This record gives sequence, C-alpha cells and structure tokens, in this order.
Amino acid sequence: MIIVMEPGASEESIARVEAKIRENGLDVHISRGTERTLIGAVGDERKLEPKTFETLPGVERSLHILKPYKLVAREWHHASTVIDVSGVLVGGQEIQVIAGPCSVETDPQMRDAAAAVASAGARMMRGGAFKPRTSPYAFQGKGVEGLDMLKKAAAPHGLPVVTELMDVRMLDAFLERGVDVIQIGARNMQNFDLLKELGRVNVPVILKRGLCATINEWLMAAEYIAAGGNHKIIFCERGIRTFETAYRNVLDVTAVPVLKRETHLPVIIDPSHAGGKAWMVPALSCAAIAAGADGLLIEVHPSPIDAWCDADQALSPAEFSALMQTLSQISAAIGRTLPIPSAAKQAKSA
Amino acid sequence: MIIVMEPGASEESIARVEAKIRENGLDVHISRGTERTLIGAVGDERKLEPKTFETLPGVERSLHILKPYKLVAREWHHASTVIDVSGVLVGGQEIQVIAGPCSVETDPQMRDAAAAVASAGARMMRGGAFKPRTSPYAFQGKGVEGLDMLKKAAAPHGLPVVTELMDVRMLDAFLERGVDVIQIGARNMQNFDLLKELGRVNVPVILKRGLCATINEWLMAAEYIAAGGNHKIIFCERGIRTFETAYRNVLDVTAVPVLKRETHLPVIIDPSHAGGKAWMVPALSCAAIAAGADGLLIEVHPSPIDAWCDADQALSPAEFSALMQTLSQISAAIGRTLPIPSAAKQAKSA
Amino acid sequence: MIIVMEPGASEESIARVEAKIRENGLDVHISRGTERTLIGAVGDERKLEPKTFETLPGVERSLHILKPYKLVAREWHHASTVIDVSGVLVGGQEIQVIAGPCSVETDPQMRDAAAAVASAGARMMRGGAFKPRTSPYAFQGKGVEGLDMLKKAAAPHGLPVVTELMDVRMLDAFLERGVDVIQIGARNMQNFDLLKELGRVNVPVILKRGLCATINEWLMAAEYIAAGGNHKIIFCERGIRTFETAYRNVLDVTAVPVLKRETHLPVIIDPSHAGGKAWMVPALSCAAIAAGADGLLIEVHPSPIDAWCDADQALSPAEFSALMQTLSQISAAIGRTLPIPSAAKQAKSA
Amino acid sequence: MIIVMEPGASEESIARVEAKIRENGLDVHISRGTERTLIGAVGDERKLEPKTFETLPGVERSLHILKPYKLVAREWHHASTVIDVSGVLVGGQEIQVIAGPCSVETDPQMRDAAAAVASAGARMMRGGAFKPRTSPYAFQGKGVEGLDMLKKAAAPHGLPVVTELMDVRMLDAFLERGVDVIQIGARNMQNFDLLKELGRVNVPVILKRGLCATINEWLMAAEYIAAGGNHKIIFCERGIRTFETAYRNVLDVTAVPVLKRETHLPVIIDPSHAGGKAWMVPALSCAAIAAGADGLLIEVHPSPIDAWCDADQALSPAEFSALMQTLSQISAAIGRTLPIPSAAKQAKSA
Repeated sequence: MIIVMEPGASEESIARVEAKIRENGLDVHISRGTERTLIGAVGDERKLEPKTFETLPGVERSLHILKPYKLVAREWHHASTVIDVSGVLVGGQEIQVIAGPCSVETDPQMRDAAAAVASAGARMMRGGAFKPRTSPYAFQGKGVEGLDMLKKAAAPHGLPVVTELMDVRMLDAFLERGVDVIQIGARNMQNFDLLKELGRVNVPVILKRGLCATINEWLMAAEYIAAGGNHKIIFCERGIRTFETAYRNVLDVTAVPVLKRETHLPVIIDPSHAGGKAWMVPALSCAAIAAGADGLLIEVHPSPIDAWCDADQALSPAEFSALMQTLSQISAAIGRTLPIPSAAKQAKSA
Repeated sequence: MIIVMEPGASEESIARVEAKIRENGLDVHISRGTERTLIGAVGDERKLEPKTFETLPGVERSLHILKPYKLVAREWHHASTVIDVSGVLVGGQEIQVIAGPCSVETDPQMRDAAAAVASAGARMMRGGAFKPRTSPYAFQGKGVEGLDMLKKAAAPHGLPVVTELMDVRMLDAFLERGVDVIQIGARNMQNFDLLKELGRVNVPVILKRGLCATINEWLMAAEYIAAGGNHKIIFCERGIRTFETAYRNVLDVTAVPVLKRETHLPVIIDPSHAGGKAWMVPALSCAAIAAGADGLLIEVHPSPIDAWCDADQALSPAEFSALMQTLSQISAAIGRTLPIPSAAKQAKSA
Repeated sequence: MIIVMEPGASEESIARVEAKIRENGLDVHISRGTERTLIGAVGDERKLEPKTFETLPGVERSLHILKPYKLVAREWHHASTVIDVSGVLVGGQEIQVIAGPCSVETDPQMRDAAAAVASAGARMMRGGAFKPRTSPYAFQGKGVEGLDMLKKAAAPHGLPVVTELMDVRMLDAFLERGVDVIQIGARNMQNFDLLKELGRVNVPVILKRGLCATINEWLMAAEYIAAGGNHKIIFCERGIRTFETAYRNVLDVTAVPVLKRETHLPVIIDPSHAGGKAWMVPALSCAAIAAGADGLLIEVHPSPIDAWCDADQALSPAEFSALMQTLSQISAAIGRTLPIPSAAKQAKSA
Repeated sequence: MIIVMEPGASEESIARVEAKIRENGLDVHISRGTERTLIGAVGDERKLEPKTFETLPGVERSLHILKPYKLVAREWHHASTVIDVSGVLVGGQEIQVIAGPCSVETDPQMRDAAAAVASAGARMMRGGAFKPRTSPYAFQGKGVEGLDMLKKAAAPHGLPVVTELMDVRMLDAFLERGVDVIQIGARNMQNFDLLKELGRVNVPVILKRGLCATINEWLMAAEYIAAGGNHKIIFCERGIRTFETAYRNVLDVTAVPVLKRETHLPVIIDPSHAGGKAWMVPALSCAAIAAGADGLLIEVHPSPIDAWCDADQALSPAEFSALMQTLSQISAAIGRTLPIPSAAKQAKSA
C-alpha cells in the first residue's frame, strides 16, 4: 500500500502513519518527492484497510498496489482450471453450451426442450424453478416441483442441469435433488450469506455478474465461495446496466479477455439476458465465442410465443440449431472445438 | 398497454394481437395511423406482460401506460403516510435524523456514540451488527451480540434502533431483540425472498436503494413488502453508481422530489455512504433536507480514527453537533422543523 | 404521438390537447380506458414536440411512436448501402480493416506503418494529424503537415486514408489534400455545426459514437449529415463509458446487430480505443467481426513502445498480421470474406 | 508517478524503466516489496505519460500521484476567485441567480422575461440564440439576431447577459455584441479548439460539464482555457447521464463540495436541464444552494406553455419569484446572502 501525504505534511503526521503501518506488522519505506512525500507499506498489504489511513492528519489518499483476491487469481494459480460437471468439462479446449427454457413450466414443455437442445449439441440443460421477478405479481416459478421436472426431462439425454438458487433455505432441496450446477443470479452476486453457504458444498456454481458489479467486486464475490473451500466456480457475464435504453443491457464482451487473464476459472456468457431480444442472441453468441468465452448459457423454448416468462428472448429449436452450426465453425476458426451431433449437421445441409 | 404494429402489418397479425388481449379479459381499441397501427388494451393492464406481445408476428413493440406499482403509489393513496417508530414519527412535518457508528464494536464505543448522537438531536440510533463487506477477509460484524449491544446503548436515551438484516435466517433474532427498524441494504434491495418475509412482520423497514436500481425497481421492491401486508416502509437513497470515480457514489438528490410525488411513503437520505468521505457529509446532508427529504441516516463515531470500518466517512460528535445546528436552520427555511436540544444550542453559541 | 392524460383529467383539458394537435395539422384519436384517457395524434408526428404537450394541464406524459430519424433509417431504405471509398467498398460482403498509428509522427514511422498494414491485408490507412487530448499540455498532433505525411506514406500502397477532423476551420485543408475519409471523433459526435458542414461535402465520413451517446442520438447525429445531402456515413462504435474501471471503456458489441437493423449504413468497430490495451485488441476484434461488423479501425505502430501517444494500445506489425489471419477465418465462418495477401499467409505458415 | 512492476520482473526490465525516467529529467526511487517492486519518478511527473511505461516489459501498471491540472487547482491558488461580470460578483459571499428563457424567441417575450427575472432578484439574464438540438429538424435558434434581442431586453434592468457559443466562427459576433458571459454547453466541453480560442479572450466563461465528463476531465477542460490566459471560468453542473430513466439526468450535487475543494473558481448549478421538468426545479435549486453552490442558472419563461423549446422545464415568473424567496432564506441559514428586491418580498406576503 502507498500513502500519499498532503503537500507540506508535518514530520509528526508522517511519523504517525509510519507507526500505524508498523503496528500492523509491515515495514515502512519513505520517498520524499518534490511535491509530495510517499510512504510505502512493505509486506502483505491485504491486512491493511486503505481507508484507515485516510482519516489520519496530513494524509491525502492511500492506495492498494496488490489485488485483493487470491484464491481465484491466476497470479497464484497459473494453469486454467477445468471443472468437471457430471462428466462435462468446462474451461478446457472444448466449448460448452447450456440451453433450455427461462422457466420450468410443464412436463411436455421440458421434454420437448430437452430433446431440442440435446439434438442441437448443447451439453447441459438450464431451466428456472425459482424466478426472481421485478414485480411481486408476476409468475414466481414452480418451486421445488420444478427442480424435479427439470431433472426428469434432462435425464434421458444425459444432460447435467443448471438452475438458480435464490434463497439459502432452499439449498438442501437443491442438493437432495442432485442439481448439477447451482446458478447464482445477478441480483444475488453480493448476497454474502448465500455465497458463504455455497463455499461449504461440493457442487459447481455459476456466478452471474451483478448488473453494475465491477470486475473486482465479481472476483471478490467468487473469493467468498472459494474461501469456504469450493473452488468450482464458473463466471457468467450477462450484460451490464448502462445509460443505453435501446436494449436491456450491454453485453460486456471485454470482460472475457480480462477475466481470462485475471482468474484461472472458466468464463461463460449469457447472450439471452444481455440483449433481451431473441433476434440479438445469434450475434452476441458469436461475439462471445470469438472473444474467448468457454461457453454459453442460452434460452431456448419449444414454442417461444407461449413461454411464461421472457418470451421475447428465447430461441426456437430451429433457430438454436442453426446458431450451433455457426458457433461450431467460429470455434474452429479460433482453434477450439464445439462438436455438433452429426444428425444436426445433416438437418442443416438437407 | 399499447401495442405498436410494424409498418404494413397484416390484418391477420392485428387480429391475433386482438385475440390475445381479449383472452386476458381486456377490451381492444384499434387506431390506424398513417405509418403505424396502434392497438390499445383497455382494462387493468397490470395483468398483461408487454413482452408476450413482442413475440407475435407483426408487432414492433408494446408499452405499459400504467405504472406497475399500486400499494405504494400516491395515485392510490393521496395523503403522505407517517410511520410511527416506537414514538418517533417519520414522514410528517418534523425531520428525523438517525445517527450512530457504521458497526457495533464495543460497549464503551456504543455508550459514547449513543450519548453523542442523542445530545446533538438525533431521534434514532443506527449501528451495524451484520456487515456486508466486499472482501471475505474483512470484519463481518459482531453478529447477534451486536444487536444486544446496540439496544443496550440506545435504551438510556430512549432512542429506537435501526440495524441491517442481511440473512433471512436471522429475522427471528431481530424480532426477539426488539429491533425497532429493520434496514435492508443496497445489495439486498432485490433479495425477493427476504422482502417477502418482511411483508409478514409488523416492524418498520428502511429500504435502501440498490446501487444501480431504477426508481421503478425500487418502488416495485417496496411493493413486494407491501403486498405481504407490511406498509411501514421508508425509502433511503444512498448514492448510485455512475462513471464518476472522484467519489464513491453520486447522491441522487432528484430521487427525493420524484419519490415524494410517486409514493406516499417517507424518504430519507444516507449522505455518509453516498460520498464516502466525512468532509462531504455536511454539504450532502444540507442538500438532502433542502430537497425535501424526511430525514437522514448519518454515520457518527466517538473517535472516527479508530473505527473498525468506513473510518473515513464517520463524523465526530463535534462535527455532527455543528451539522445539526445548520440542518435545523435549513429545515426552518423550508417550513419544517428539526428540534435541537437546548444544551446543544448553548454548546455552539458558547 | 400518444398523450396520456392524468386520472380524472377534465373534458376541458382533453379538448385543449385535441386543439393543439389539430393546430399542427394532425388528426386526433381518443381512447378512454378504465384508468386513463389516451389521445393519439395521427399523421407525421415528427412535426410535434412531445414536451410541448407535457406542459398542458391534465397531461401526464406524451410519447413518440415513430422514430425521429428518416434518411438514415432502414425502414425507408431497405437495402444496405455500400460506400465506395476511393475504390474500397465498405458495407458489402467483404470486411474492410483500416489500420495505422494513433498519431502521425515522422516520415519513417509512417512509411513503415504503411508497409506493415498493407502487407497484412488492411485496405485503408489511419493516422491522426490533429489529436484531441484531455490535457492542454499533451502532444496535440502535427497538424496540416501530418495530413501530407499520411497521404505520402499511404500512396505507394494504394491505401485510401482516414484522419480526424476536429475544427470546422480545417475542413478546406482536408479537402484540398484529398483526405479520403473524414473521421469525426467521439467528443465531436454532437458538434452540430461541424456535422452540418460535413453534410455539404462529398467525402465519406466515419462518425464515431460519443462516449455516452445513445443509439438514438447517434443516428440523429448521422441524420444531421444526411440532411445536408451527404449520405456516405460509416458508424464506428469505439466503446462506451460505464461504471467499470478495470478497462478504459466497454465495447458495446450489441450496437452492431441493432444498428444493422435500424440503419442501412455500414458499421465498423474501433477495438483499440474501446479496451485501451493492446492485449485486449485481438479478442475485441474477433468479437466485432463475429457480431456482424463491416470492418475495423485498428491502431498499429511499427514500434509501439516508441509511440508518441496511446503507446499501450497499438499492435505491433507482427501482432497485427497474426490477428488478420484469425479474422479472415472468422469472416469465412460467418459467410463473409476478408482477403489476406498470399505473402502474409506464407509468413505465418513459415 | 509510480511504476508497479510485475511479480518476478527482471533486473533488466527494472533498469529499463529507470533509464526512461532519467531520460525525462526526473529522479528515481526504488522500493522492493515482498510481492512487487515499485519505482517512483521523483520530480514534475506532469511531463511523463503513464501509458508510455505500461508498454515496457515487466511493467504491471503505472499511476500518477499528482493531479494533472495546475492553473485551476486550489492547491496552487488557495483563495477563492471572485469573478466580476460587468459589476456582478460571482464566487463571493453573495449567491447569484441567472435566469431567462431557454431560447430567444421574440422581442415581447424577451422584454417580459427580463422584467420578470429582474424583479424577482436575478442578477443576470440568460437566453439561447444558438441552440444545440438532437434533431436537425428542430428549431436551431434565432442566431446573431437573437444576441441583439437578448442584449436589448436585458439592458433596461442592468442585467449582464449569458448565452451559448457553439461554433468558433461565431466568437467575433459574440465579442462585438458585448455578450457578458460566454456559455460553453455540455456537448462542447471537450471541443478543444473552441476552448483554446476562449483562452485568448477576456470574457468570463461558464463551462458546463459534459453529460458523462468526470470531474478530472472537466477541470482539464478548464485548464485548456486557463492555459491560454483567460482565468475567468465558472463551472456549471447540469446533471449527468446515468442508468436512471425516470428523469432526464441526475443532478450531481456531490460535485459542488468536491469542486469547491479542488478548484478556486466559482461553481454554479443548472437545475432546469438536470431534472428536465419544471416541478423538479425548486427542490433541486434548494439542494444546490444548501450544498454550497455559488449560484444558479434557471430557465424562466413569461409563458412556459408557449415556449419554443424545453417548454416543460421553464418556470413561470410567479413560480420563479416564490422560489427566490425560499432560496434567500436557505442562503441565510448557511451564512450567505441572496438579496431579494423589497417589491418581490411584498408581493409574496401580500
């Protein structure tokens, strides 16, 4: 940490800063410049809170030099982590697509959705049983029953399932039903009590970025989970909130190369929530893979027009299948793979 | 709701929209313009989801005309609601200031804080027992023990207490210990399961605005609480996240007149978290009261330099007392009152 | 336009709105709902200013149904416009890459830059002679002399040149020296007097998006140019300003599909300014092409370490050449072309 | 400046950074920490560009310690600057209100506006002759003729006039007609060629903040003017662009105390453009004065309903007069003065 003193700061105030650093067990290094004196704290500065110094007399500001995250940082774990989700590897050379409806509605809807996404080449299935809705009067999800419906639909195709956990009191139900990946939604990215509980389980977690969370806050949220012992964390960018009103959110594609550099954990993209409209999903999906994402989380509904929520952002099975062909080709162009079942390929060329 | 058809939309697609509106029990009103056909849904449009229509062929977009909130809306409840917090009235002619330290640390700290804020004219006391921290390695609060320490310190001065609830599993502990106002922090503004539980209790709630929550989302979050039966809700603006990096957040003072127009519930301001520096607090506090806020939530610590968290944003007792004098005068200038104990007034003039 | 009346608006106030619409030569359509009365203005609403109605008694709000732009809108010009820049076609099936240094520095630097970008497959050259700098004490560009240096370097390779115009008084110098494409930077996107002058010339314009300009404002800025008679406009997204501080700006890749739908004009991306670091440029470039952009504007310097400005964001010739190979493959994957000189291909495989 | 080296940076790369600092005439100070080596550049770091170092091998990042502005900084000019605008002092103990219509329309409109604002206590008059409009099809202002109309209307009341300059080619016309204060609008805050010209004249400038300009960029824009020799600069905050859509912009009231600390120059607020609705203006005006602003720039129209632009945000003369009474009382509450003509006071009490 570096503490920048005000111009003309007294020797007494410099001594006081020095004493405070030593109290915390770090060494002190003083540099007297022409306009400012700088005081460096040498040692593990993660133990120090910069704000504490800013209340001392004569201090202009103080700043961290080291990054505050450790377990999730590539600096401390150079090799990329590959997470095994019930046999599907995330974060390796192969790109993984997770697809399925916004919400679990009925058994036939789930059965058709599972068949559609599996045949197009998706390797995992998504479906919301608990839905965070802006309005208390909107459909809130099927609840625990929805978890069972999701597992039942995915099983015949061997698809691991991904679904969102909102309430810490429901965690046991998720574990008992064998949810393969627990998704933490944007609104709960900093629900710290929930993150702490996830640190204690041995289930992979998809951690979505909060709507206005910085990369740093997002990494620190993952650090909460990792600090508890669970290192199976997949970052999912899903669009950030900006001034732009022409689309719901702005997909922050820059986050992909930045995260791949900062952390050893996998990074995927949710193009469906980012743009908010089905017609934007192909362009955003292609951009995400080209930028280096390890996978996608896409909303697909057997009949989007009849979907109970977010109807306007789900792809139809045909649209999804066509998109998978293009994604497979882009993957090859950048030296990765996204295998498509041969039946799907024939369907297209036919 | 109004559905805007694309230029050249077919009669068939218009008929399909019409049918969908009637299915939902509303009436239809069609207006054929020179460039677009508009279809109005007449009736309680809150039952309709605009997105559903945007998937239909020929539809360009659809938009709500009515606001989605009802219980918290001034449109349906014209008179301002005054909330009785253990005898202190919030939302009336009198301005109420809530003050105290960021976190509950020790009994002596709390005793001194309570004495300081009471003598300066604060009518309620704040203090955090559970602290939401960006880093898992930072001090997380004293927990349940902190609730007891807060109540014990505030009691001799007759100050009701305000403290933050983060985890739904802790609600009973809050109720048992007689927390007078439950604060929901910015990060939990859309923790819907928590909001639903608060709807079932009979304790006033301070609902802080999320860092990037729109006014509309904030009102809908309050609607979640109100829909459960608890109408004792106080909105608290605490700064929003923008592109500016010179200060932590931007205090959105425009939210005050806008909320006072949209809702009948009280609105207060937290100037301490907004700016993030103690030296900004007086200017922001004065601005808030001048803009029409019903109160303030201010961090005051007996010795800011020694605070365990957010040391740089707490006012000292002397700074707080001086600020209260100015706030009292501004209140008078706009026709409201903020009574200051006569001892505090003498202290200043002495 | 639709005018939404307040609940309980009087017949008199409805009549007044009606009269104001008719005064402007439009027809009136009234729809009385259960909670609100809506008044539609039927005809070319572009003549009406919604704000005018919001001052009338009894009016809650008013809103446009039509989009405010016309000449640049795809609605009125369905086919994509292909712009001929001195023989290089922008907006067609072929993807065009414009490359070169941030600023024109010396003749040898420009000579090397031109050779490098041409041999890697760029079809136009960029270079700044007039530099907008945040600080008055920073290098402001070589000025008119720089225009000559740019033309001289590009000529042997047959590369049309792109350079930024900041001051309307310099327009004649740009025209006299045969600048092939005039670039309008982000800070001047709404410099309306400058836009009006560009409407009067017959030179293609690259219109960069302002740092916080909405898609709508950007289209309207282009409409200023088009309204003057110059329809050769290329949109260039270069990152928007958000709350994120981990990188300079957020590349708004969603703008690509949205603009391609809203306007018939070409859309390119500047990945260098968006991220602000050379190591981010390949990922962002790939994402842009995959998302459907018609081209790229990339900073390349013969020796980035010695660049006079933005040294940290320029690619070296070798990095640029390698990127072009990947971009060419991604172009093929999405059914477009980006031809690479055969010498460049051999260099790679060698 | 401090250069942070990567973990494990070689001695060679450290030596290279050191050499580059010395080349620029500064001294070097090296601090070897447990995880990072820091290199300090001791001397006037304004001569160094941090980005230049970030391209060197082994460098993680580099950061400025000193602020980049000098002439406008309070650090170098402790006393507040009071600017004399044709006899009206801005930046002193007295608060100054500038009022008038959005645009100059007709002689009677201007005559009535001048009488209204003068009698309510405004000390300067505003009125736009050149209007920056989002749409090329909207009213663009009366032009030079409007300047004459403004001067003519203001003269009988002894009001200096404020009006916006958009095009550098119009500067002479402004000077010839004796415009007392030249306003630079938000869109032109970084029109550097225009700022440079203003540095060469001896007329006070109101420099509005760009919609997404940081405090730092704003101060640097003022530095452009000051560097030319004109130090008569008044900052005007007018709302920033955020994610919020319930109002046009967010008035950034925090900018007031921050600017008053960073610069010796006066700071005023434009509450009319910030909120965008007349009913928000009183609350925002009161907040601005309470926060410490030196003045206000308010839109007042003799008949808002008939205004040619921004009709919904102008106050009527009666609303303005009532607001001035309240502002005068708030000024007194914070120890400043805003004198109101005695006739205006009687009007109110009558």
